[in-house]
Amino acid sequence: MAHIRLNNEELPGIIGLMDYNRHTAKPLNELAEVLLRGDSTLSSAEREIIASYVSYKNNCHFCHTSHGAAAVAHMNASVDLIDDIKAGIQNYEISAKLRSLLNIAHKVQQGGKYVLAEDIDAARTEGATDLEIHDTVLIAAAFCMFNRYVDGLGTWAPEPKEAYLEVGKKLAYEGYTSF
Amino acid sequence: MAHIRLNNEELPGIIGLMDYNRHTAKPLNELAEVLLRGDSTLSSAEREIIASYVSYKNNCHFCHTSHGAAAVAHMNASVDLIDDIKAGIQNYEISAKLRSLLNIAHKVQQGGKYVLAEDIDAARTEGATDLEIHDTVLIAAAFCMFNRYVDGLGTWAPEPKEAYLEVGKKLAYEGYTSF
Repeated sequence: MAHIRLNNEELPGIIGLMDYNRHTAKPLNELAEVLLRGDSTLSSAEREIIASYVSYKNNCHFCHTSHGAAAVAHMNASVDLIDDIKAGIQNYEISAKLRSLLNIAHKVQQGGKYVLAEDIDAARTEGATDLEIHDTVLIAAAFCMFNRYVDGLGTWAPEPKEAYLEVGKKLAYEGYTSF
Repeated sequence: MAHIRLNNEELPGIIGLMDYNRHTAKPLNELAEVLLRGDSTLSSAEREIIASYVSYKNNCHFCHTSHGAAAVAHMNASVDLIDDIKAGIQNYEISAKLRSLLNIAHKVQQGGKYVLAEDIDAARTEGATDLEIHDTVLIAAAFCMFNRYVDGLGTWAPEPKEAYLEVGKKLAYEGYTSF
C-alpha cells in the first residue's frame, strides 16, 4: 500500500499518482510525451531504452519494466529485451551512438557533475548531435524524478515483466497524454 | 562553457537551457509553477526552501541559490537564509512540520526507497496532510531532475549569492511561466 491514501489503490506505480493529482499529472505527462514521443532524430525505441536503463539503475521496477515494455512495443522485440536492458544490452544490437548516450545517461543518474567533457566528446565521435545529447541528459534527469516519485510514495508494482506488455503498447502507440 | 552550444552562452543555469529548447521548457516551467506557486497549504516560501535544500544536497549551486533567493523574496528575509538552508536551517525558525518534510525530501534526494513508513508517520504526527507529503516528495524528485539537467549539461552559474536576489524576486512574484 502506498505511503498516502490514493483515490484508487489498485492503480500501480505512477498511474495511481497521476490519478491522485491531475494538476501535477498534466505537466508530467506532457514532459514524458515530448521527451519520448516528440520529434527527434533519436527513435522512440532508443529513448525508451534510455528511460528504462536509468530506471533500472535507480532500482525502480515499475518504471524500468513499463518503459522497457514500451521499447519492446516500438521494436516489435521479444520481452527478453527488458532483462537485456538490465544487463547493459548485451544481446540486442544497438548503435555505438546509443551506447555512448547510455554512458552519459548513467553518469546523469549518478549526478549531473559526473558527466565529463570526455563523455560528451565520445558521443560526438559516434555522431551524436548537441540536441541528442541535450535530450539524453534531460530524459535521464527526468527519470531520476519519475523513479523517486514512484518509489518515494511507496506505490506498488506488478512483479512479472509480462504484466507490463499491454501498458508498453499503450505508451508506445497512444502516448503519455492519454493517461 | 556548457557541454553543448546554447543559443545564448551568457544565460546561466537552467535559463540558458530553457532558451535552447522551448519544447521541453514549456512542461518544465509548468511543473515548477504548479509545484512552487500553485494552490497549496504549504506556503511558497516553504516549498522554495524544500527545493533549495534538495538542490544543495545535489551539489547544484545554481538551483540551490536561485530557489533560496526565491524563499528570501517570499519571506522578505535576509540573504543569509540561503547559507542557513545549507546548514539545515539552524538560525531561521521553521515549523516542526516543515522540518519533518525536509527529512522526507532528503530521503527522496538519496533515492525513493529511502523513504520509510516512519518518516511518513513522523510528518503526520507534526500535522502534515497526505497532499503535503505528496507535494514534498514530488518537489524533491523534481529538483533531482532540474539539478541533473543543469549540471549534466555543464551550464555556468554566478558564484555570489547576492547575484541571485533579482532572479529570486522574479521567481517569487512573476513565477516560472514568465521564462
